[in-house]
Formats: sequence, C-alpha cells, structure tokens
Amino acid sequence: MARVMTMEFQPGELRLIDQRKLPISSEIVVCRSYTEVAAAIKEMVVRGAPAIGAAAAYGVAIGLAEFVAAGRPAAELDAYVDKVIEVLAATRPTAVNLFWALDRMRRVYEANRDLSPSELQQRLEQEAQAIADEDVATNRKIGEYGAELVPRGAGILTHCNAGALATVDYGTALAVIRVAHEQGKEIMVYADETRPFLQGARLTAWELQQDQIPVTLITDNMAAYVMQQGRVQLVVVGADRIAANGDTANKIGTYGLAILAKEHGIPFYIAAPRSTIDASLKSGAEIPIEERHHSEVTHLFGHQIAPADVAVLNPAFDVTPHRYITGIITEVGVLRPPYTDSIAAALRK
Amino acid sequence: MARVMTMEFQPGELRLIDQRKLPISSEIVVCRSYTEVAAAIKEMVVRGAPAIGAAAAYGVAIGLAEFVAAGRPAAELDAYVDKVIEVLAATRPTAVNLFWALDRMRRVYEANRDLSPSELQQRLEQEAQAIADEDVATNRKIGEYGAELVPRGAGILTHCNAGALATVDYGTALAVIRVAHEQGKEIMVYADETRPFLQGARLTAWELQQDQIPVTLITDNMAAYVMQQGRVQLVVVGADRIAANGDTANKIGTYGLAILAKEHGIPFYIAAPRSTIDASLKSGAEIPIEERHHSEVTHLFGHQIAPADVAVLNPAFDVTPHRYITGIITEVGVLRPPYTDSIAAALRK
Repeated sequence: MARVMTMEFQPGELRLIDQRKLPISSEIVVCRSYTEVAAAIKEMVVRGAPAIGAAAAYGVAIGLAEFVAAGRPAAELDAYVDKVIEVLAATRPTAVNLFWALDRMRRVYEANRDLSPSELQQRLEQEAQAIADEDVATNRKIGEYGAELVPRGAGILTHCNAGALATVDYGTALAVIRVAHEQGKEIMVYADETRPFLQGARLTAWELQQDQIPVTLITDNMAAYVMQQGRVQLVVVGADRIAANGDTANKIGTYGLAILAKEHGIPFYIAAPRSTIDASLKSGAEIPIEERHHSEVTHLFGHQIAPADVAVLNPAFDVTPHRYITGIITEVGVLRPPYTDSIAAALRK
Repeated sequence: MARVMTMEFQPGELRLIDQRKLPISSEIVVCRSYTEVAAAIKEMVVRGAPAIGAAAAYGVAIGLAEFVAAGRPAAELDAYVDKVIEVLAATRPTAVNLFWALDRMRRVYEANRDLSPSELQQRLEQEAQAIADEDVATNRKIGEYGAELVPRGAGILTHCNAGALATVDYGTALAVIRVAHEQGKEIMVYADETRPFLQGARLTAWELQQDQIPVTLITDNMAAYVMQQGRVQLVVVGADRIAANGDTANKIGTYGLAILAKEHGIPFYIAAPRSTIDASLKSGAEIPIEERHHSEVTHLFGHQIAPADVAVLNPAFDVTPHRYITGIITEVGVLRPPYTDSIAAALRK
C-alpha cells in the first residue's frame, strides 16, 4: 500500500509517523533508545492497541542494542531487561497488547539467556519483527472473516482509528472495511471524529481517503442521527482489552455507540486480534481505565476551547458490556455469545 | 446577575455578545440595521431558540427605525415590513421561536396600521421589549417547576447551551439548574462540550462557572460513561421546536442522549417555553433540520482538524421522539405523556 507506514524498524532505531500531527503534517519521530520509545507511546506519537504492542516489542530490542553498544557486562543484563520492560509497561495501562508483547519478548529473552548480549539483541530483534509481521497477517484474516458480515451497499459506522495506523498495517476494524471494499460491496463508512484526540477525523478519514474508500466524517454526537436516518447497517470498532466474558474496553464513546446500535437494531462488532483478549480478567470491571490530561479536552492544537480552569473528566476508554456485542471478529473467526465459551475456544486454537 | 448580557437594546441599535468567541474573548457586535441582525442570527453571533426569537423581534423594530430615519413614504411601509420579516425569517430554519416572535411582531404591526411610521416604530420597540421581558419571567417559572424534579445531590447532564446566553436571560435547562442550586440541592452539572460549535464547553461551562455552580466538562462521547458510573440522576436540555405530539428538535446529539438516558433508567427532560411548541406540526418528522457548513466540522477556530476535502454531515439539530421524553418543563408546569393532550392543554392556558 502506498500509504504512510505506522512504524519502520532497523537495528537500534524505530521510526514512527507522528500521529498527533496527521493529516495536517507528516512528521517522523526517530527513537534510538527504549526510553524514547516509551515516551512516544505515552505521548501518543504511536497509538492503537496492536501498534503499541509492536512498538513496545521493538523498544525492548532497542534497549538491548543500547546495552550492547555501551559494552556493559553481561552480568548486568537481567536487571537491565527488567528495567526496560518495566519502563515500557508503565506507558499506558489499558491496552493489553502492550503487556502481551512485552511478556512474549521476556519469554524469548529468558529462553535464550545462554546467548551473548549481542546474540540476544539479534534474537529479540527477530522476535519483535515476528510480532509485527504476524500482526499484519492477523489483520488480513480479521478482514476476511469480518467482510462476510458486511451486506452489499452497507453503511458502516466506526469510531476512533482501528486502522493501519493503529496496527503495524492494514488495521482491525478498518481491515473489515478494506476487504469489504475490495470485494466491491459499495460501502459507505461513517467515521466518528472521536474527541478529544480526533483519531477519527485525523486518522481514519485520512486513511480511508488514501485508499479511496468512501467516507463521511461526523462528530461523535451525530451517530444516533445517522442511525435514525437508516444510513448505518453495522458498527465495527477495535478494542484495547477484552475480558474472558467478552466485556470490551475501547476508545471512549464506544459504549454509547453500542447502546445506540442496540436501540436501532444494528449489529455491533468488535474487530481485534486474540492478543487483545485478557483471559485473566473475568469481566470488564477489572480493566483499568486510563485518565488522561485535562488539557486534551480544554485545548486543541494548543488553542483554548473551554474555560481554562474548568473541571474535566478525560477517561481515554470505556467498557462495553458483552451483552451489547453481536460478535468479536478475530483471526480465527467470528466469536459469538456466550463469549466465555467462544473466547476460551478461540484461545485454545 | 453579574454575567455578560446576551443582548441589550436601545432604539435603532441591538448590542449582542459575540457567542462565537466566548469565553476566550468578550466582544460586542453592534447591529444598526435589520440585515445586520439577520446576519448575526445566521452566523450564530446570537444563538439559542428563545434568544433568536427576541433578537429577531428587535430586528423588526430596528427595521422600522431605519425606515423612519430614511424619511421614506408611509405608502411603502407594508412592502418594507414584509421584506424585513422575510429576511429575518430566512436566517435559521429549525427554531420555531424565531417564527413565533416574527408573527407576533407582524400582528402588532397590522393591528396598528393606522399609526404613523414613527409611532409604529415605538409600538414595535415596546413589543420587542415585551417579548424579551416575558422571556426572562417565563424562564424563572421554568426553573421553579423544573427544580422540583431535581433530587438532592443530583448529577445533572446537559447538552449545548440552554442558558442565559440562549435566552434573554436566566436560560431554560440552566434555569432548572440555577433554581436547584439556589435551593441548596448540592448538584453537579455535567456539560457535554457539544461539537461542532462547542456551546457546552464555551458557553455552558463558562456560564455556570460565573454563577459558581459546580460543573464538569466532558466530550459528547463520554455521556454514556458518566451514566454507567452512576454520576447522572437526570438529563435536562432545551428545545428548538416541539411538535404537537411532543417530538422535540434540539441541538444535534440530543436524540442520542435520550436513548442513553432510557438505557440507564435516567429521566430525560426538555425545558422550553410554550413559544417553542409548534402545534401546526403533528410530529417531529415535519420539522426542518438545518444543515450547516462543513467547515464547522473540519476546522476549529480556523485550525484544520480533518482532511480538508473529506465528505461531512453537519446537521445542526436532531429530533427526539416523544417516547424518550420523561417530561417537558414549561412556564405553566411540567407536561407529561400523552403529550398530544398535555401540550394542547398547556397551549389553552
């Protein structure tokens, strides 16, 4: 695809498109240390659960490269890797793909503890690359399973950006849309702008335009109106963490959309890789919700849009109870209620 | 009240606080012709159904002042007044208070057709002033009836600005909030920011801060989350037009909020004067919905926030079917379902 790459890696260096500035400008942030990768995740240079996971994995590999380049003694490596993973894990609390990717990197590290630091660096670079490559393959599978759910001529409402920019490439919810479009289904996408960070306006609308997929931008509070007008035949969104019972954390506003979809008799789908499932959590009540800085609501591109000292809530995510979710589209198929069973079966595959 | 006045009139001149710029700056727009009043309404210098009605009434009076100042012959007055009313009526299509106020001015004009132009000017200035004065008295009644519905310690969610700035003074939905606060009910207001024009962030949050009423600003897509958290005990919003069956047009996003309130078992109230009721319409399907310029969605304070050429929907209002509305708070009491009966009775009072 001709579009801008979410991330590009070479040993010791991760290049990220700065998603805070798209689509007005295309700037690259170059991370040459694991702390720079951590800062880029925390400050949302890169965002989207699968993209955060892959970036963090590359961050671990860059951490190893720093260690090797500094010529530090192998005896210090265990404590150092603990620190690298700890710093990367502390960036954002909600997306479980972050912890999933870091756990996977740690397991590879521990299984290869007999190698030299430079050999370990290479091994961890390979593993991070594998995570990134698998993400793209996974997303294509999600797209294929999901496209079967899309009627010809459908209006599809999506929220935030579960696209190429939220993943290594291709997207999750937007993979469903891409495949349906490739199949000639003549879809129309309604993209919620997704305040406060405007991922829908800035990223989703732009990504779909790049691929010449018909898209109409709306403000978040227009979703009920477009549903009432009969313009929407399904809703598909991504996920940041899915509990064992199917309760799903995703970008703030998702829960409201799920209620609106139910009221209008419109199916509501989650599209996410299995790495988004956190089977250790019985329900969504256990998912930590990140509260971000108030200035994201009161200011936009540095411009004040509200009284500066007003009290603000800014939860980055909400939890949609499983009863509102028609299906969860994964790389091994579409999971249906009861989710406790279908999720457990999907994880065994 | 110490707060900024929405509008101030003296013969031949209407001064409006520029609501597009609040609260970042307080600028006054001075209208010395009826076309300037029309432009101010169209461009949303002044907005809010009752405020639009009063401003348009003053606009007619200013039109008469222009006619008198120009020394034009009385024989031309009928056609001139038709033109003045036509131009003012063409500014915004949804709020019925605009047409209600213009009809009232026309009736007074026609009933006094035997007076000289300068006497007619005075008479119409008196009538516009009466409309404005009655609006404030009406709003206080709405506040008193509405406050009875507010439990002690309630969280109250509101949308857009149905405050002093949407009326001549005191507000409709915010009148309910003001009286409940005056009664010491220890309320907390959740103000939706209300994209795209941000009336909630810029006007409601600011107005309530001025009156030291506790307010928390949220983005529109956080409403479901705050309801899920148990923070909201009632929703109260204004209205731009109410059909005979209770279907209500109000700022885009209102319909979605009504669904969310229903799903959470939270009462959903409309607060509006009887002049907002359009008994000539059987249902909300007949209410015209204004579509505004796309740049309101793609740009904010002149700053681009989306791909410049993306397709956009920008309906300024939506219609909430009456079945979602718990009650309509008017100056003659709280109307309850079935609304066809209660609205007809209220209009007879």
